[in-house]
Amino acid sequence: MDWLPTYRRELLAGDINAGIIVTIVLIPQAMAYAMLAGLPPQVGLYSCLLPIMLYALFGSSRSLAIGPVGLVSLIVGSTIIEMNLQGQAQTLTVAVTLACMSGILLLLMRILKLGSVINFISHPVLSGFTSAAAILIILSQLKHLLGLETPRAIHLPEALTTITTHLNETNLTTAMLGIGGIAIMWLLRRLADSKQSTNLINILARTGPLIIVSSGIVIVWWLALDKTANVNIVGAIPAGLPTLSIPSIDIAMIRELFPAAFIIAIVGYLGNISVAKTLATRKRQKIDADQELLAHGICNLGASISGGYPIAGGFGRSMVNYESGANTPMASVITAALMSVALLFLTPLLYFLPHSVLAAIIIVSVSTLIDYRAFKHAWLYDKADALALLVTFFMVLTLGVEVGILTGASLSIGIYLHRSSKPHVAVIGRVGDSEHFRNVDRFKVKTCEHVIAMRVDENLYFSNTNFIEDAIINLIAENQQAKHLVIVCSSVNMIDASALEALDSIVDRLRQAGVTMHLAEVKGPVMDRLEKSPFLQRLQPGQVFLSTHEAMMKLGCGLGN
Amino acid sequence: MDWLPTYRRELLAGDINAGIIVTIVLIPQAMAYAMLAGLPPQVGLYSCLLPIMLYALFGSSRSLAIGPVGLVSLIVGSTIIEMNLQGQAQTLTVAVTLACMSGILLLLMRILKLGSVINFISHPVLSGFTSAAAILIILSQLKHLLGLETPRAIHLPEALTTITTHLNETNLTTAMLGIGGIAIMWLLRRLADSKQSTNLINILARTGPLIIVSSGIVIVWWLALDKTANVNIVGAIPAGLPTLSIPSIDIAMIRELFPAAFIIAIVGYLGNISVAKTLATRKRQKIDADQELLAHGICNLGASISGGYPIAGGFGRSMVNYESGANTPMASVITAALMSVALLFLTPLLYFLPHSVLAAIIIVSVSTLIDYRAFKHAWLYDKADALALLVTFFMVLTLGVEVGILTGASLSIGIYLHRSSKPHVAVIGRVGDSEHFRNVDRFKVKTCEHVIAMRVDENLYFSNTNFIEDAIINLIAENQQAKHLVIVCSSVNMIDASALEALDSIVDRLRQAGVTMHLAEVKGPVMDRLEKSPFLQRLQPGQVFLSTHEAMMKLGCGLGN
Repeated sequence: MDWLPTYRRELLAGDINAGIIVTIVLIPQAMAYAMLAGLPPQVGLYSCLLPIMLYALFGSSRSLAIGPVGLVSLIVGSTIIEMNLQGQAQTLTVAVTLACMSGILLLLMRILKLGSVINFISHPVLSGFTSAAAILIILSQLKHLLGLETPRAIHLPEALTTITTHLNETNLTTAMLGIGGIAIMWLLRRLADSKQSTNLINILARTGPLIIVSSGIVIVWWLALDKTANVNIVGAIPAGLPTLSIPSIDIAMIRELFPAAFIIAIVGYLGNISVAKTLATRKRQKIDADQELLAHGICNLGASISGGYPIAGGFGRSMVNYESGANTPMASVITAALMSVALLFLTPLLYFLPHSVLAAIIIVSVSTLIDYRAFKHAWLYDKADALALLVTFFMVLTLGVEVGILTGASLSIGIYLHRSSKPHVAVIGRVGDSEHFRNVDRFKVKTCEHVIAMRVDENLYFSNTNFIEDAIINLIAENQQAKHLVIVCSSVNMIDASALEALDSIVDRLRQAGVTMHLAEVKGPVMDRLEKSPFLQRLQPGQVFLSTHEAMMKLGCGLGN
Repeated sequence: MDWLPTYRRELLAGDINAGIIVTIVLIPQAMAYAMLAGLPPQVGLYSCLLPIMLYALFGSSRSLAIGPVGLVSLIVGSTIIEMNLQGQAQTLTVAVTLACMSGILLLLMRILKLGSVINFISHPVLSGFTSAAAILIILSQLKHLLGLETPRAIHLPEALTTITTHLNETNLTTAMLGIGGIAIMWLLRRLADSKQSTNLINILARTGPLIIVSSGIVIVWWLALDKTANVNIVGAIPAGLPTLSIPSIDIAMIRELFPAAFIIAIVGYLGNISVAKTLATRKRQKIDADQELLAHGICNLGASISGGYPIAGGFGRSMVNYESGANTPMASVITAALMSVALLFLTPLLYFLPHSVLAAIIIVSVSTLIDYRAFKHAWLYDKADALALLVTFFMVLTLGVEVGILTGASLSIGIYLHRSSKPHVAVIGRVGDSEHFRNVDRFKVKTCEHVIAMRVDENLYFSNTNFIEDAIINLIAENQQAKHLVIVCSSVNMIDASALEALDSIVDRLRQAGVTMHLAEVKGPVMDRLEKSPFLQRLQPGQVFLSTHEAMMKLGCGLGN
């Protein structure tokens, strides 16, 4: 909120401009995403009022545009389908409860300082999830785009079967409206991506949704396509602002919704923070991940008490906001005010809006999320990370978002632990008569028979204690003359309790084999913690040397040897 | 099996001596642990024949003594109780199936090179599990020790309630036999631990079980305590060797037993490898963790086809083997042969063996596993690791071994990821006119306004990409004059795909903010992988410098500045 006291009049023009343009983008998007989530269109609009105001007050990013987003709407939608609810009232309760729960979870993560949970989702997993979710979203919209009367399907195989078996029932008029909409938006976007593009064209491309929405409404109304050609339309949207109410709490429902709420909180927050970072760097502004966690939690709580569903910062919208000149969160305040006006007076205008146009907007928005290059890059750089991406992708497609993300995250973590469980370990020797020491396998270096220096290129922690123990045992077996072992810790940033215990027992065992263990080049923070434990006493007569050179000199493996 | 061709006659004396003494220790132990697992005594004895022979052929340790062990027996026992089985035939099927499944799991881990799964169990988790398991084992034996007729309980609260409510039904004669046994073994052990102890006394202490078993049998038989005082005795043990048979496979049972079999495989293997390491270091012999995985898998399969239950290397027994002079696995072959003789001819002698004496043997063996100092050490060194220990301890006590170990392991992993998600990051500057660079917050160093050098003391991977991104964004926001950012990677042993992608987008964003990013001191293996990706091209005009000094010189922040 530091922007408010220092607000100057000359910032207003940009903010008003951005506020208007974002509203134009937001109205059709909010309705479309509500449809994706299986909710009535006004719920999408409600989600744009209070949360936007709250983000202006609590958010750390100056141009982030809060509102319904595709990935979160997909999760809400599939949760609703999976729960097999009866009637709209229950559907709304689930949506509001999800917003409330993910808001509370985000606040808890902030209070308990557990924000780092989001770090457990690696990029490959996020990328696999995003691509799969985009495909699921597009498939779910085909029925609206083509005017099919099929039940909603959430996983890939059933969705594909449903669509293909009903393809012959396509409503041609509906399909033309939808596909025409896609074509217009695609052309506008190509224009914006072309080299002659200016900021103005860029913004025009972003208003593509408004163009096809208004044309769609006019065409349907003019030709009365809802009656003559059975085109599905949005119909009557209740006018007026949402009433504020505390959502009622149902313990059984909370338990059932927990996994979905957790994933919504994480996915929404990850989206938020990534948009915020992109925008902050451009203007060399700071960002505060903890403040963002708080703001995102408050916004979701705001959505839930004002009849909305879970929201997040949208990348496209935020870019529009930034590029159309938003200087401060005042732009968002203006957006919220305009949204209220729309809700109060403009809903009758949306009566004839065809569903297929909304489907077109969703399809065009999310199609950019399918990112096969991410897989290619991961494959080139790291096969294991590419595997995590692929597994997440297919699991999300076939078994759903929660299972997919949790499996992918576990796999990523497993891959990391597996990798660091076999760290690079090198026996090192002196380079010429210098104070430098290098790997004996790669360089021509001098070593001594009675002193072995071993460098471990990894943190010492539970995942690699077994490997290091084995390495030391085998090293001592191979060098029967060795009397001293120096472990060089120049690459060790952390020694955990498991590794400390392992080192402790290695010291004992080596002593029985007539070998004294020493440490060298222990980093400050690692040494600070070692000094708190009895390990250094137990290491004696073994010592901690500042450098490998010092160790070698004092252990009788000096320059003369 | 490399010991067999080079076997020399002079090794035989030691092997025979060790073989005899281990057999003496093993017979009562095997029967006692079978009772702990809820199995008839002969199953314990069967588990000592084929597996011991197989370990002699495939094992990598020369003195490891295979057979029933306490921790594994506890897991088998609680699995059997939890399954609520009817009759002994089903119980035996479960025991044999568990041995078969854990054998197959171990072989699969070997074939798929997934042995590092065992590394995910940190020392604090293992320590919490071991202490809790020892308490559960002791509680489960109190009924036998005191001659109570209570149902078996597996979790702490119910076990405590059952014991306390039935305490008044104690059979005094039974209790005296058991507690007397404990007292004798405890005295022998004190003798062995005293300073005047010799190897002979040490070995005598290990034969404590034999002493109390034979006295127990003689006393019960002499005074006919089984009839006059209702002392529970082992009774008739079928004489003869087990018949070999392939265990029958029941898919439903396999699914139900999977978690227990998995934990048995891991706990058994961890026990094996830790004993093997201790013994190998003493004699400066190599160990081969993969070979050990294979051997342990084959031994469990061997147990399952010869009517036994899951086995592992026992620490106490292996020490006896080592200290009584075992030179080669020939000692184990001799043990197996003697066990066969015992099964064929000596089982009638065990008829009068009281259960309370077996309970005494178990209680004395496992009481050393309760290790409160491990908690004290962990607490002093690292509160988070101590927390993982405590959580595992209480979860195992109250909710069972599988839940406890899995929760503890997840917590350990979470703690590690959380910790490395906020790595130490330092802006560094030049020390005087040297080529050394140090943290600007800790040392008086020289810096330049237009070049920032930032050192990250951790691997760059998914858990800390967010933190590093934030750190860089905030650094650039604080230094509005900066034109170059040098990331010093001297402590970075790995850059994963997530971090690479993050670096990639940071390069782009910094460019838009007018800042060029560079890398310095990238390690060889890290550089090898970076060269496979398009990152280095995208970094341009940013460069990779060999040293921070070189980077600073070339970027116009040399010695003169």
